[in-house]
Amino acid sequence: VSDRLVVVGGDAAGMSAASQARRLAPDLEIVAFERGNHVSYSACGEPYFVAGIVPTLERLVARRPAEFARRGIDVRLRSEVKEIDLDRRTVKVRDAAGGASAEWGFDHLMYATGSAPLRPTSIEGIDDPAILGLRTLDDAAALKQRVDGGRGRAVVVGGGYIGIEVAEALVARHWEVTMVTSGPHVLEKTLDPEIGDAACQAVRAYGVNLMTGALVERVERDGDRFRVAGADFAVEGDLVFIGLGTTPEVELAAAAGIPLGGTGAVAVDNYQRTSIEGVWAGGDCAEVSHRLTGRQVNIMLGTVANKTGRIAGTNIAGGGPTPFPGVLGTAITKIGEAEIARTGLTTIEARAAGYQPVTGLVMGTTTAGYWPGAAPMKVMLVADRASGRLLGGQIVGGAGAGKRIDVIAAAIWNGMTASELAWVDLAYAPPFGGVWDLVLIAARRAADDAG
Amino acid sequence: VSDRLVVVGGDAAGMSAASQARRLAPDLEIVAFERGNHVSYSACGEPYFVAGIVPTLERLVARRPAEFARRGIDVRLRSEVKEIDLDRRTVKVRDAAGGASAEWGFDHLMYATGSAPLRPTSIEGIDDPAILGLRTLDDAAALKQRVDGGRGRAVVVGGGYIGIEVAEALVARHWEVTMVTSGPHVLEKTLDPEIGDAACQAVRAYGVNLMTGALVERVERDGDRFRVAGADFAVEGDLVFIGLGTTPEVELAAAAGIPLGGTGAVAVDNYQRTSIEGVWAGGDCAEVSHRLTGRQVNIMLGTVANKTGRIAGTNIAGGGPTPFPGVLGTAITKIGEAEIARTGLTTIEARAAGYQPVTGLVMGTTTAGYWPGAAPMKVMLVADRASGRLLGGQIVGGAGAGKRIDVIAAAIWNGMTASELAWVDLAYAPPFGGVWDLVLIAARRAADDAG
Repeated sequence: VSDRLVVVGGDAAGMSAASQARRLAPDLEIVAFERGNHVSYSACGEPYFVAGIVPTLERLVARRPAEFARRGIDVRLRSEVKEIDLDRRTVKVRDAAGGASAEWGFDHLMYATGSAPLRPTSIEGIDDPAILGLRTLDDAAALKQRVDGGRGRAVVVGGGYIGIEVAEALVARHWEVTMVTSGPHVLEKTLDPEIGDAACQAVRAYGVNLMTGALVERVERDGDRFRVAGADFAVEGDLVFIGLGTTPEVELAAAAGIPLGGTGAVAVDNYQRTSIEGVWAGGDCAEVSHRLTGRQVNIMLGTVANKTGRIAGTNIAGGGPTPFPGVLGTAITKIGEAEIARTGLTTIEARAAGYQPVTGLVMGTTTAGYWPGAAPMKVMLVADRASGRLLGGQIVGGAGAGKRIDVIAAAIWNGMTASELAWVDLAYAPPFGGVWDLVLIAARRAADDAG
Repeated sequence: VSDRLVVVGGDAAGMSAASQARRLAPDLEIVAFERGNHVSYSACGEPYFVAGIVPTLERLVARRPAEFARRGIDVRLRSEVKEIDLDRRTVKVRDAAGGASAEWGFDHLMYATGSAPLRPTSIEGIDDPAILGLRTLDDAAALKQRVDGGRGRAVVVGGGYIGIEVAEALVARHWEVTMVTSGPHVLEKTLDPEIGDAACQAVRAYGVNLMTGALVERVERDGDRFRVAGADFAVEGDLVFIGLGTTPEVELAAAAGIPLGGTGAVAVDNYQRTSIEGVWAGGDCAEVSHRLTGRQVNIMLGTVANKTGRIAGTNIAGGGPTPFPGVLGTAITKIGEAEIARTGLTTIEARAAGYQPVTGLVMGTTTAGYWPGAAPMKVMLVADRASGRLLGGQIVGGAGAGKRIDVIAAAIWNGMTASELAWVDLAYAPPFGGVWDLVLIAARRAADDAG
């Protein structure tokens, strides 16, 4: 291959695609356009920069443009692709400095624009730029600056991963934090109530004033003072952080005529191909197939972005065709010592996908019960009643609890039933759990309820 | 069922069988004979009692005879089965108090005598009862008493799990510890050198003076002073602990005519049946089938004992037939902050089983590299060159490293190839690892070398 690959968006998916394409196709010309000031950074690490745990933003940058340049990947920062012309196979790029537009032809286009924090129009006043969000390193710098600027009361709107992680950071920085979420519990879209309620306890135990079932209708500002209000509540604060999820950045694709899927993200097949020849997509802006349901979903996680980027790179370079084997939506976070993790389908998602779910819910400890520092842990498995097949898992607990989700993910990945999982030869020693790992007991419980 | 089940040996396998049989067969008469002073205790917790981490031995007892009695299981402590008569279907039991022998008939017999520390006759002086080992709670009490009795120099003979855990305990109690092992590295039978060497580093980093390649030929004692010596070395100490592995307790079975297998342990099928009608076995004293090779092995771990006991109980009670799905030999331990874990076959075992192994060895950190407290971690996977199928995994690293072995175990359990494992949707957040979990990277590396 001696064509040109143009990458639109220089974070996980885009740069993974570029790197992998470079490995497999030494002659391919690769140019990556990034409208921001950094490429290849860890957005997931941003809350920990705000918390002061990660000392500099530079630490979150995995690779700099100069490193890519050494590998023959031309990275252009502050260069925004404003238009994609699919007929002429060109992109129009404006650099921040002059605003001049340059045109670049492409043979392959990797669309990897990511996502942006949601600012729902249903909330009056939400467009106030003084309300902070978190996506780019620049966002992180702005939030950190505000947090450093003085302590006070903070209102976190939204109880998702970012909301929880930023709330943790703010508490760590001695802010008084109120979290406001419309759902019955935090992480409402990804956890069932049994684990979601335990997650709420963890959030409260860390010192966050958590308000559930609180639908925000407006954010008012009077100088430096905010007021976040709904029908029957109002919270005042010196800082408002918005963490209501993210939306795929698809405007450019839509304007160009690259088809979107039912989720609103760019439609791709399992090879990361859009329906336009030579145009590929991956990461937050694109759909992926769910391994269990086979349906197209839009799961915006760094793991998925890296994987789909790599797959795109392989296929762009002609190293394939290699299909992406799908996602389970495995995710993990923590607040204080409490770890929260999930994979697969919740009972609600399972029902929506046509299953009749049963669950196995067990409580235990992260280590042998007699081990000092044994922390409570809850494991819940979701299985299909008819077949016993595992559909999902959720965990909350102390140190060591969360990454147990990976065993459940591996089990679901392989189509195991709950009763099969119950006998897998997992590791045991008293500092690491019980002789029957809680995952095995949950599996047995789910198996009892299934079939 | 209204027959009588006699259980010989009241720890993990025996009492798991009794408990499960009771659940499924309320009318079954169940009598369990245990020659020691406790049933249903955590032998794995004993080193942590010696270390002072677990304050009392009572904490290691999961269930007392009175609790079993309430569930209709008659537990007899200090009652040693001296003879099994297969023709008359009776056991002869001697209680410690009077030495009188009583005869009990059985319809079902669960043989679960466990294992005893090895004292190889090749080591002169090894039978000295002043040389301490660890199996029963009484052994743990004796070792603790000696450790409490005064600090000094200790010599740990053997670099297996028990040796490492006792060495850790002794260092924690401010003893000066020398570990002597004949192999090139600790855990020589269960780890390949790449991970075994890292385990040695961890043992040394914790303050143990580790001597590898040192074959002990004799232990001499002069009053309270010991001298542990080989052809070209001698170590003096005030305490000698022997951790040279364990041997299945099969004398009683052999004398009765219950057939042993090629490993020297009691031969059973996948239903825990010996070839004698109504006679079952499980736990350390019995063989189990290896899930990968299908061969009978003798893996003495608490997890296996609990599982095989439960299977035996199910089948004794007529709740089956339920087969035991096999073992991978998954195991974990720690020394200080370093976690060491393994599953499946080492390259040596893989070759012995007829495979041509390739490996994927990677180094990384337990968390994102920029996370404070990121600790080094090494993951090695073993795969079959021809098929790419995963055969084994080994891990050494800081907090959070060890239980990652469970994902590898689940992958091997399901017959995955290395290249399949490389894409499994594992959880990521900066406090828990890299965006590509090190297990995935190791899988990719192994896949590159296979096929």
